[in-house]
Amino acid sequence: MAAASPFADLDHALQSAREIWFNKIDVNGWLEAFASHPAIGTTSPSISQWSKEEQSTALATATDSTVQELVEWNARYSAKFGFVFLICASGRGTPEILAELKKRYLNRPIVEFEIAAQEKMKIIELRLAKLFKTPARMTPSMTAQLPAMQSDKAGDSVVSSISIHMLA
Amino acid sequence: MAAASPFADLDHALQSAREIWFNKIDVNGWLEAFASHPAIGTTSPSISQWSKEEQSTALATATDSTVQELVEWNARYSAKFGFVFLICASGRGTPEILAELKKRYLNRPIVEFEIAAQEKMKIIELRLAKLFKTPARMTPSMTAQLPAMQSDKAGDSVVSSISIHMLA
Repeated sequence: MAAASPFADLDHALQSAREIWFNKIDVNGWLEAFASHPAIGTTSPSISQWSKEEQSTALATATDSTVQELVEWNARYSAKFGFVFLICASGRGTPEILAELKKRYLNRPIVEFEIAAQEKMKIIELRLAKLFKTPARMTPSMTAQLPAMQSDKAGDSVVSSISIHMLA
Repeated sequence: MAAASPFADLDHALQSAREIWFNKIDVNGWLEAFASHPAIGTTSPSISQWSKEEQSTALATATDSTVQELVEWNARYSAKFGFVFLICASGRGTPEILAELKKRYLNRPIVEFEIAAQEKMKIIELRLAKLFKTPARMTPSMTAQLPAMQSDKAGDSVVSSISIHMLA
């Protein structure tokens, strides 16, 4: 990724990120990246500014009972698949997320694994777009989340190398 | 799987094994099962009787240079994908296995992950068929390999529960 940077524009950065995420990072790397995500609906103060922003619609549409249901289905999902339920939550209400979780729960493990990776890529794309649009908005808690994109093999971080070039 | 046994016949056992392998065991379980396999072409005395029989054609067609090439490509494959190259070797010569390895090396990690799981299922099917055909051939080194099929979640072993009912 370092070799691919600096990036001419957002499209170039997205293309490089997709290439690395889908073609270079192995399945163990995907599982590591998934493991860095808090369960959706988590409201702990330690979750990132990125996640807070992406889940603002979900939070605004949550009720005690839907939150409780989300906690239960998150646990059921993790028990079946061995990783946390990942969804690009931006603009999605809690009822929609819950419906998606229940639908995806029925998938075969390998099918769900690939869907989760696609959702993770959507999250990365969204964050890259934000970085390119308003670099000044980048906060320390956002940068702290970036190593989740790291590939041991590539020995580099997609987003952090982008941010170095974009924010310098 | 224990609930599904005893098995009326081989077809019933295969159907149960496939259902568990593809629908119940999660991706971590696949990785664990893959990890129990020696690299193809390994001739260490500790490899199972199952593997020895399955690789007899490969062994008969191996030369010093193809074995060396296999070792190199196995290492390259593991470095890219994070797990060992799995192939149902039965009846396949070393040149064919090597050609398959080089072709599959080009795959995306998620694609290769599913192919490896399909190959692993072929190996399981072959072993189940042998168990059903000639149970008396079952040796201690064969049974020692069976926990590789175990799913922590199912809390049971596909093959060992079959063997209990078939060999009792």
